[in-house]
Amino acid sequence: MAVHEAERRAMARALELAAHGPRGINPQVGAVILSPAGEIIAEGWHHGAGTPHAEVDALSKLHDGDARGATAVVTLEPCNHTGRTGPCAVALIEAGISRVIYALDDPGAMSGGGAQRLRGAGVEVEAGEQADGARALIADWLTALRLGRPHITVKWAQSLDGRAAADDGTSQWITGPAARADVHRRRAEADAILVGTGTVLADDPALTARDGDMLYEHQPIPVVIGSRATPADAAVRRHPHEALFYDTDDLHSVVADLHERGIQNAFIEGGPTLASAFITAGLADRVLAYVAPVLLGGGRLALTDIGVPTIAAARRLTIEEWVPLGADMLAIARFEDDESDDDESDDNEGVR
Amino acid sequence: MAVHEAERRAMARALELAAHGPRGINPQVGAVILSPAGEIIAEGWHHGAGTPHAEVDALSKLHDGDARGATAVVTLEPCNHTGRTGPCAVALIEAGISRVIYALDDPGAMSGGGAQRLRGAGVEVEAGEQADGARALIADWLTALRLGRPHITVKWAQSLDGRAAADDGTSQWITGPAARADVHRRRAEADAILVGTGTVLADDPALTARDGDMLYEHQPIPVVIGSRATPADAAVRRHPHEALFYDTDDLHSVVADLHERGIQNAFIEGGPTLASAFITAGLADRVLAYVAPVLLGGGRLALTDIGVPTIAAARRLTIEEWVPLGADMLAIARFEDDESDDDESDDNEGVR
Repeated sequence: MAVHEAERRAMARALELAAHGPRGINPQVGAVILSPAGEIIAEGWHHGAGTPHAEVDALSKLHDGDARGATAVVTLEPCNHTGRTGPCAVALIEAGISRVIYALDDPGAMSGGGAQRLRGAGVEVEAGEQADGARALIADWLTALRLGRPHITVKWAQSLDGRAAADDGTSQWITGPAARADVHRRRAEADAILVGTGTVLADDPALTARDGDMLYEHQPIPVVIGSRATPADAAVRRHPHEALFYDTDDLHSVVADLHERGIQNAFIEGGPTLASAFITAGLADRVLAYVAPVLLGGGRLALTDIGVPTIAAARRLTIEEWVPLGADMLAIARFEDDESDDDESDDNEGVR
Repeated sequence: MAVHEAERRAMARALELAAHGPRGINPQVGAVILSPAGEIIAEGWHHGAGTPHAEVDALSKLHDGDARGATAVVTLEPCNHTGRTGPCAVALIEAGISRVIYALDDPGAMSGGGAQRLRGAGVEVEAGEQADGARALIADWLTALRLGRPHITVKWAQSLDGRAAADDGTSQWITGPAARADVHRRRAEADAILVGTGTVLADDPALTARDGDMLYEHQPIPVVIGSRATPADAAVRRHPHEALFYDTDDLHSVVADLHERGIQNAFIEGGPTLASAFITAGLADRVLAYVAPVLLGGGRLALTDIGVPTIAAARRLTIEEWVPLGADMLAIARFEDDESDDDESDDNEGVR
């Protein structure tokens, strides 16, 4: 069976609704209920973990019986899993929905199977409508699901010869204004920024995403890792988001906790010790290296040791793009041994 | 007065003739003698230090009196200086030349003044014809004259994080084939390649410019600096040119000696100690940094210390070009505190 024009428009609307929901441990999902005549009779979206899924949110706007014979248009396959909420497939069946259009298959092994359950109950199901749009909307969530942790970008600025600072520790500025503005734009797309306590004590960074003196609307959550205390008057304590502090050198545990908090992507922003530790631990998917046409020499390296004893063990990168930024050059690269940009695997547990 | 069409053609020919001469302590110069009817009656070029200048070489092809009333077309202002040969201006006057066309003013304070001397003897003089072509031909010679030493390019290959090798010293290969081929092409344009004895002992480099297995026609002279002995069976001893050995750490004296030998440009090709020493000594005009998308970490840095204590003293570079080479990126840059690309100054002593 084909998807009708009214259903296509409803899916576009459902994608808009989905974007109203928060990024987090659950994906952003939107839903529209169409009457048998093709008119929108209810809309809904997922408002975050612990709240009803999008379909149930939409059904909740209707009186008993209103959905009988109606069509549900949803951006993700209705779940078949009892978590903090019951299975959406069952809720749709019980409401009397006779037809379901969805964009993306549920990638979770535990939550999947909704389409089959719906069909088993005699509901018509059409999958794949506007799947690319739905995939793009929740790309970071899908990546984090596949990795089993947030997607991690290690970012640093360096002189051409790989130094993060001159020998006395001064580093303002190695890169130019275009590169620094680029950092802030990209920060505004991150869920979290991670720094070591050494960087907090040395540089007292605000860890905000700024456009000149203005804050971008979206701010990453600041995360401080290390055993030294962050001063009471540190700039990071005045961040719009309350900072997270991890007094540990077990980066896997940090990353697991951030994942549970719904962090889908994270920026590692310094210093060299933390960046090198993430790379050594295999907890780095992408590199953003801002390279300035400056030579510094000396001992303040942008990366320290990353566990490479010999050239055959070099951590090879695949350059996604060289981006000229004023006089500087940004290398955007992913690790060749990283699979974060491969096709999604389908053996993950659902997390909804 | 205008330059005639036959004179223009003669200057183009003189530039071709000039290119037959060798690069060296003297500039490449060509000369053509035209009869009063505008026909070429003699050609000449400078064959190298200690041999006649181009004008005198051309005049030597004629019998006494043949040049009376003729026009001399020369790519460089006839000299007014008695060095290893007498002043060309006088030779032209004595031969009875009545008109001289030249391309470039002689930039040497001692050798200049030839035009004035010619005019003083009643010879018509036209300057500037095809000056750009003449300047391009001897650009490296002009640069070396201005610097008072060879133009020096420091070249290295590095991982993105600034390492020249992994911790065990292995480095083959950090960069890819396109970058390595580019190195050889550029070597074929250099007069000399300089390495430290450490590099000779560690890598046994051939220091030839190769296109695959073939040698390029022009080969740079290999130069080895340092106090350790170069083994009798070292590859550098099988180079088409006999290698020069300098058992010193006084780079200024090395550079002065190379200048006296007519080396107009030199490549510093390793290792990190020698490269850093040249940069520290202010004996570096240009950088060629081949940056590979690889991370190595560890202690084998492409540059070691270059005498930069604080960020304000950073050696800032002006990027001339970022050149993508396969997966690698070549940064071609000059030092901002270097004047080698400024307009030529005119207070240098002549060296012809």
